[in-house]
Amino acid sequence: MSEKESYPKGFLLNAISAGIKANGELDMGILYSQSPCHYFGVFTRNKIQAAPVRLCRERLNTPIHGLIVNSGKANSFTGTQGLKDAYTITQLAEEALKVRNESMLSLSTGVIGEPLPMDTIKEGVKKLCRLMESKENQPSLFAQSICTTDTKVKEITLCFEVDGRQVCIYGSAKGSGMIFPNMATMLAFIVTDLSIAPHLMAKALTEAVDESFNAISVDGDQSTNDSVIHLANGEVGNPIIDKEDQNYQKYKEALKEVALYLAQSIVRDGEGATKFIEIAVKGALSKEDAQNCASHIANSLLVKTAFFGEDANWGRFIYAVGASGCEVDETTIDMKLGTILLVEKGVRTDFKDQDASRYMKNHDLYLEINLGLGEYSKTMYTCDLSYDYVKINGDYRT
Amino acid sequence: MSEKESYPKGFLLNAISAGIKANGELDMGILYSQSPCHYFGVFTRNKIQAAPVRLCRERLNTPIHGLIVNSGKANSFTGTQGLKDAYTITQLAEEALKVRNESMLSLSTGVIGEPLPMDTIKEGVKKLCRLMESKENQPSLFAQSICTTDTKVKEITLCFEVDGRQVCIYGSAKGSGMIFPNMATMLAFIVTDLSIAPHLMAKALTEAVDESFNAISVDGDQSTNDSVIHLANGEVGNPIIDKEDQNYQKYKEALKEVALYLAQSIVRDGEGATKFIEIAVKGALSKEDAQNCASHIANSLLVKTAFFGEDANWGRFIYAVGASGCEVDETTIDMKLGTILLVEKGVRTDFKDQDASRYMKNHDLYLEINLGLGEYSKTMYTCDLSYDYVKINGDYRT
Repeated sequence: MSEKESYPKGFLLNAISAGIKANGELDMGILYSQSPCHYFGVFTRNKIQAAPVRLCRERLNTPIHGLIVNSGKANSFTGTQGLKDAYTITQLAEEALKVRNESMLSLSTGVIGEPLPMDTIKEGVKKLCRLMESKENQPSLFAQSICTTDTKVKEITLCFEVDGRQVCIYGSAKGSGMIFPNMATMLAFIVTDLSIAPHLMAKALTEAVDESFNAISVDGDQSTNDSVIHLANGEVGNPIIDKEDQNYQKYKEALKEVALYLAQSIVRDGEGATKFIEIAVKGALSKEDAQNCASHIANSLLVKTAFFGEDANWGRFIYAVGASGCEVDETTIDMKLGTILLVEKGVRTDFKDQDASRYMKNHDLYLEINLGLGEYSKTMYTCDLSYDYVKINGDYRT
Repeated sequence: MSEKESYPKGFLLNAISAGIKANGELDMGILYSQSPCHYFGVFTRNKIQAAPVRLCRERLNTPIHGLIVNSGKANSFTGTQGLKDAYTITQLAEEALKVRNESMLSLSTGVIGEPLPMDTIKEGVKKLCRLMESKENQPSLFAQSICTTDTKVKEITLCFEVDGRQVCIYGSAKGSGMIFPNMATMLAFIVTDLSIAPHLMAKALTEAVDESFNAISVDGDQSTNDSVIHLANGEVGNPIIDKEDQNYQKYKEALKEVALYLAQSIVRDGEGATKFIEIAVKGALSKEDAQNCASHIANSLLVKTAFFGEDANWGRFIYAVGASGCEVDETTIDMKLGTILLVEKGVRTDFKDQDASRYMKNHDLYLEINLGLGEYSKTMYTCDLSYDYVKINGDYRT
C-alpha cells in the first residue's frame, strides 16, 4: 500500500510560517475537506475557555469543511475582541474557500492573555486558502505547525476495511506541558473518510478520549484551549454506519488506537520527560476511587521525581495511594513494578533492591497497584519530572 | 527578659545522635514535663496512617507527660510490627521516667516502609530519659533532631501576660517536602505552661492549624505521619481558662502566631525553594471555592515554575483559577502582583511588563486574585519549584 493511498481521501492539510512565532517556524496550519464533514469534538473542562473553544463548541454537530490553527498565541483570556478575532478568521477562510458561512473552525495554542496579531493572521489565512488550490497535501507540515514546546511531531495514519473498501483515519496532535485528564494544553485533529452517523461518531470519540487523552498527565494542569476535533467526510462511499454493528466496532477500535497513540506520544514528549510510565490501578471499590488513585499517583511530584531519579522508592507510591482519598486497607494492597512484586497484602516482599533499581533504568516503566477491594480499574500514562521540566517552564516566555 | 525566663516552665527538651541516621546527625529527641499535660493533636488525613499517628490518636485527650521523636525512619507502612514498636518506645520511656502507663507519645519521620532499627532506638530512649535527670533544657537540639531534608531549624517562643503572670508558648517544627493542606510530612510540637481547659485547647489548635499548617503547600503531597502536638502543663498556676474570655483570646492569638510562624518557616525552607509566595484569593462565591482556587494556584507546577523563572506569566495564574473548578466569570476577575494591578474586570491593564518583571525578582511575593463574585477568601503560602526540588527528590534515598 503506497503512502498516498493509505490516507483519508478528500482531506488536504498544509501549513505556513505566517510570522506569529518570532523564530520563523511554521505557525499556521489548515485542514480542509471539499465535501462537508460530520463534526464532533471534546473540549477542556477548565472553567475559563479560550475564544476558539467557544467557537468550536457553537458549531458542534453542524457540517464543517475544516479548520485554521495558529500556534504562538492561544487567543485565551482575550475578552470580546478574542471572540471577534476567532470569527474573523473563520469568515475569511470561508470566503476564500467559497464554502458556506460558519463551516470552518478556528483553533489556537500558545501564550494566553495576549491579543492575536490579526494583520499577520489575516495574511496567513489567505495564503493557506490559496495553498488549497494546488491540492497539495502536507499533513506533516500541518502537524509541525501546531507545535509549541513539543520536541516531536505527533501523527499517525491507520487504515482498515469496511465492506471491501479501504477506510483511513489520520490524526495529529500537539501538547507537552499542562497535560492532565480533562484535556490539558493539547490539540488533536482526527479525520476519516468513513461515512458514519454523527451520534455514533460522538459516542466513539467520547469513549476513545476517555481512555487516551483523559488518561494522561504531564504536570496536572489543564489549559483553556484543549480540543479534540474529529471530522468524517464520507468520501469512502460506504453505506453510512448508523448502528453499532461490526463495522462500527472496527471504526471504534481504530479510532481508539489513533487517540491512544497520539495521547501516549504527548506523554513521551512531556516537557523534560526522560521516562514513560504506565500506572495501572486495580481492585478499587468504585470507578471514582480507581480514577482518583491512578490520577493522584500519576501527578504526585514525589512519585515523578523518584522515577526521574530511578529510585524504586515504593514508599512514595504508597503515600500517593493514601493521599488520593480512595478507600484503602493496608492489608490488601499488592504492588508490582514491572513483573517484580514489591508489596503483597500490605507487606514488603523479599524482592531484591538491586532488581528494582535495575528495572527503574528502563525508559518505559509499569507500576501496578492492586487495592484488593473491588472490581474497578484505571490505567493512566505519565512521565517523570526532570530538571528540564523546570527549565522549560521557568523560561517559556523568554 | 532573659532567654531562660521566656520559656514555658516545666518542659525539658533534649536530643541525641542515636545512630539511626548514617551520618551521625541528631536523630532522636525527647520533650518532657514532670507535671502531666492536657494534650490535643491534629493529624494527617492521608488514608494510610503511620503507626505513631495511630498511637497519638488513641491517647488524645488523656494526660500526657511528653514524647519521643525519631527522624530517619517514619515507622509507616510497617504493619503490626510497626505499631508494636511504637508502643515499645513509649513503654520504655514511661518506665525510665517513672510516669504512668500510656502517658508518653512516640513520633517518627523519614523513609517509609522500612522497619525501625529497634535495638538502636531502645538504647536511644534510655539515653534520652537519663538526660532528663540533669534537668538540662536544649530545645534547639530537639528542634534539630526532628529534621530530615530541612535545611533550617524551625523554632519560636512567644510570651504574653495572663492576670499579671507570664505565659510562654514554645513551638518547633520540621518539614520541607510533601507539604500540602491536611498536614503533609511535617511534625510540629507546641507546648505552653498555661492552665487551659482541654476543650478550649482543642478549639484554638484546630483554628490555628487551619490558618497555618493547612494553608501551606510545597508540592501538593501529604504524608502518612503529619502531626501537630499541643501540650499544656498549667505550671503558670493561673486560674484555669475555661471560657472564651479575654485571656482565651490572648492565648488563641499567640498560638496562631506560633503556628503561622512555624508553617511559614516550612514553606520558606521548602525543598529547593527560592521564593516565598502568598496567594490571596478573595471574592469567591463559597468557602470551598476560595479554598480550591487558592490551593490549585499554590500547587500548579506551571505557576510554581513561573515564579522560579521570575516570569510574571499571569496567563498561568488565570489557567490555574479556571482549572480549580471554582465558579468564575472572566469579566469580574481582578489580579494583583504585589501592588501592581495586572488584570481589572477580566482585562489586562496597561501595567508595564518591566515593572512586573522587576517585582518578580523579590524573594517574598504576593499574588491576589479577586474573583469579584462573593464574600469568601482564603490565603495560602507556597514556594516555587526549582531545579533543586527535583534534585533533592530524585536523590533522597541515595
